[in-house]
Amino acid sequence: MKLTILFGGASFEHEISIVSAITLKEKLSNFDLSFIFCDVDHKFYLIEASKMKAVTFSKGEHKKMPELTLAEGGFVQKSLLSKTMHNNVVLNLIHGADGEDGTVAALFDFYSIKYIGPRLNASVFSYDKRYTKYLCEAIDVKYVKYNVLTKDEHKHIDIAMPVIVKPASLGSSIGVSIVKDENELDYALDTAFEFDKTVIVEPFLEGVKEYNLAGYYANGEMHYSIVEEPQKEEFLDFEKKYMDFSRCEQVLKADISEELEKRLMSNFERVYRGLFEGSLIRCDFFVHNDEILLNEINPIPGSMANYLFEDFSAALEALSESLPHSKRVKVSYEYIHSISKAKGK
Amino acid sequence: MKLTILFGGASFEHEISIVSAITLKEKLSNFDLSFIFCDVDHKFYLIEASKMKAVTFSKGEHKKMPELTLAEGGFVQKSLLSKTMHNNVVLNLIHGADGEDGTVAALFDFYSIKYIGPRLNASVFSYDKRYTKYLCEAIDVKYVKYNVLTKDEHKHIDIAMPVIVKPASLGSSIGVSIVKDENELDYALDTAFEFDKTVIVEPFLEGVKEYNLAGYYANGEMHYSIVEEPQKEEFLDFEKKYMDFSRCEQVLKADISEELEKRLMSNFERVYRGLFEGSLIRCDFFVHNDEILLNEINPIPGSMANYLFEDFSAALEALSESLPHSKRVKVSYEYIHSISKAKGK
Repeated sequence: MKLTILFGGASFEHEISIVSAITLKEKLSNFDLSFIFCDVDHKFYLIEASKMKAVTFSKGEHKKMPELTLAEGGFVQKSLLSKTMHNNVVLNLIHGADGEDGTVAALFDFYSIKYIGPRLNASVFSYDKRYTKYLCEAIDVKYVKYNVLTKDEHKHIDIAMPVIVKPASLGSSIGVSIVKDENELDYALDTAFEFDKTVIVEPFLEGVKEYNLAGYYANGEMHYSIVEEPQKEEFLDFEKKYMDFSRCEQVLKADISEELEKRLMSNFERVYRGLFEGSLIRCDFFVHNDEILLNEINPIPGSMANYLFEDFSAALEALSESLPHSKRVKVSYEYIHSISKAKGK
Repeated sequence: MKLTILFGGASFEHEISIVSAITLKEKLSNFDLSFIFCDVDHKFYLIEASKMKAVTFSKGEHKKMPELTLAEGGFVQKSLLSKTMHNNVVLNLIHGADGEDGTVAALFDFYSIKYIGPRLNASVFSYDKRYTKYLCEAIDVKYVKYNVLTKDEHKHIDIAMPVIVKPASLGSSIGVSIVKDENELDYALDTAFEFDKTVIVEPFLEGVKEYNLAGYYANGEMHYSIVEEPQKEEFLDFEKKYMDFSRCEQVLKADISEELEKRLMSNFERVYRGLFEGSLIRCDFFVHNDEILLNEINPIPGSMANYLFEDFSAALEALSESLPHSKRVKVSYEYIHSISKAKGK
C-alpha cells in the first residue's frame, strides 16, 4: 500500500513526532512509504526514506530537500520544468499543535486530500482536555472531575490535595505535575501555564488502575486493539513517555475480565462513533471504585499505538479504505438574482 | 483602514455571503477595502471593487480575475514577472461551511494571516448547534432542550409537538421546519437530512420572546450592540432571512428593561470570553418564562450585524487592533539526540 507519513509540526511535541515517524518507517516496511516533514515555519519538505534519521531535522538538512506546497488534491513539488503531484493517502502523524488541534484536518479537507487522522470536530474535542470533559458529559461517559484555571483568572480550586495540574491542550505529560501539598501548587501552575493559557486541575486518584485501548472504524464496524495496562509509575514523565513513542514491539494483553474489556470497548465506541471516523485513536481509561472514567483521548497516539495491534499494517489498510469523504457543497445563484431584482441593483 | 473582505465559500450559504460582502462594501465606504472571493472549488480570486455585483459570480466572471494562493503571511498573486503579497487584515465573511466551521480559521492561523472571525475552537462550538448545547451546559448558560438524530440512527423523539426540526450545522433557516403534527415529521426530517447528517429536534416554545445581541472584545473590555427584537413571524424562512443579510440601516433598540439588557449581556459574555476573541458575533436569545435561553451563536452574522451598531466602522477598527495572536511554538531537538544515543541509531 502507498502511504505518505506527515510529521513534525510547530508543536511542543515536534520531536516525538519525528520519533513516531522513524518508528513507523520500520514497522511498515511492507508499505510503499513516502515522508513529508512540516517544519516549525510551516514549510513542507519531501524527505528521502534514507534520510529519515533524527539528525536530518536537528541539523536542518531537510531544508536541502524538495519543498512542497498544498494544492487541490495533494502536495505539489515544483521544479523549473515540471510539477509533480504527491497524492497518496496521508497518515497525519503530527502530535500536538498543528496535527491534533484540527489544523491539518482543515487544510486537508479544504484541499481534498485523503488522510488518516482526526477530522476537525474530533480534533477540538480531544486536543483540549476541557472539551473532552464537555463531550463526556454529553455522551454519558464518566470522567475525572476538574477545575479550569486561566492565566487571567486564578479561580479558587475546590479539589482536595493531592491534585494533578496539567496544561489543557498538551499530551505526552508536558508541563504536568502532581501536587501533594498546597505550597507546591504555585510552582506547578507556573509550569503548566508556560505551555498553555488554560490549565486543568484534577484530583490525583489513589489506587486507580489505568487501561489503554486503541481502535478504529472500518468496513462497517469497530475494530479494537488489545487492552494494555501501561507500566505503573506514579505517572510517566516526558522523557519516559518519549521513549514510549518509539515502541514497536507488541505488548501483552492486560489481565482483566472479559466483562471489563467489554465495558471499556463500549465506552470507547461511545466516544468514537459520529466523531472520530477516519482516525485510529487510543483512549486512556481509569478504573476507580469499579467505575470506568475516560482520562484522555489520543487522536494521534505515539507511533499510532502500533504495538497494541496484532496486525498493524492490516489495520491501517482497512482504515484507509474506509475514510469519510467530505462531499463538497454545490452552490446555486437562484436567490441572488431575485434579491438583486428586488433591490434594483 | 485597510481591510480585505473574504467571501463566498463552498457552502449552502454561498450566495448570502456574496450579499453580505456587497452590503459591507457600501457600509464601509470610508475604509480602503479589497475583496477576495473563495469559489466553490476552493480557488481564491481578487475581485475589483467595481465588479462587486451578484452577476459577477453567478456568471462566473470572477474566473477572469487574478487568482491568489495562500502563503505564509497572506495571499499571493503571481504573474509571469512578479509576485504581489496581499496581507491586510482579513474579515472572514464566509457564512456556513468553510467560513464558520473552522476551516478558514485553521488556514489563516497556519499561514499567519491576521483576521477578524471566529478561531478554530469557537467555530466548532458555534457551527454545530449540538456542540453549542455542550458549551452551554459547561458554562452554565441555559438552552432549549433537544434531541439529536442521525441519518443512520433514527432515535425516538421524546419532545412533545409542536417541535422545530433543523440541520445541526446550518444557519439562515435552511432546512428548518416547524412540525405541529406527528404526520408532518418524516417530511421535515427528510428535508433537514438533505443538508446535514445530524439533525436537532427542539420544542417549539409558545409565547417566546426573541432578542439578538452582538458584541466583541477589544481594548481590554466587552463592547455590545443594541439589543434588537427581530421582526416576529412564526419563524424567518430562508428567503426572508436572506433579505436580512443585505440590511444596513440601523435598527431600533428593543423596548426592554435595563435589568433584562444586563442579563442578556452577562449571558453573552459567558459565551464569548475565552473562546470568541477576535470575532464580532451575534447571539440570538429566547426569553421564556423569564428565563434567558441561548438559541444560537452566529460567529459571522449576516452583514456582520452592522445595523445593530451605532458606529460599525469604529467597531471593526477597534476589533482589528485587538486580534489574538497565536504565537508559534519553538522547537528543540534536545531529547531526540538522547533517544538516538540510547537506541544507538
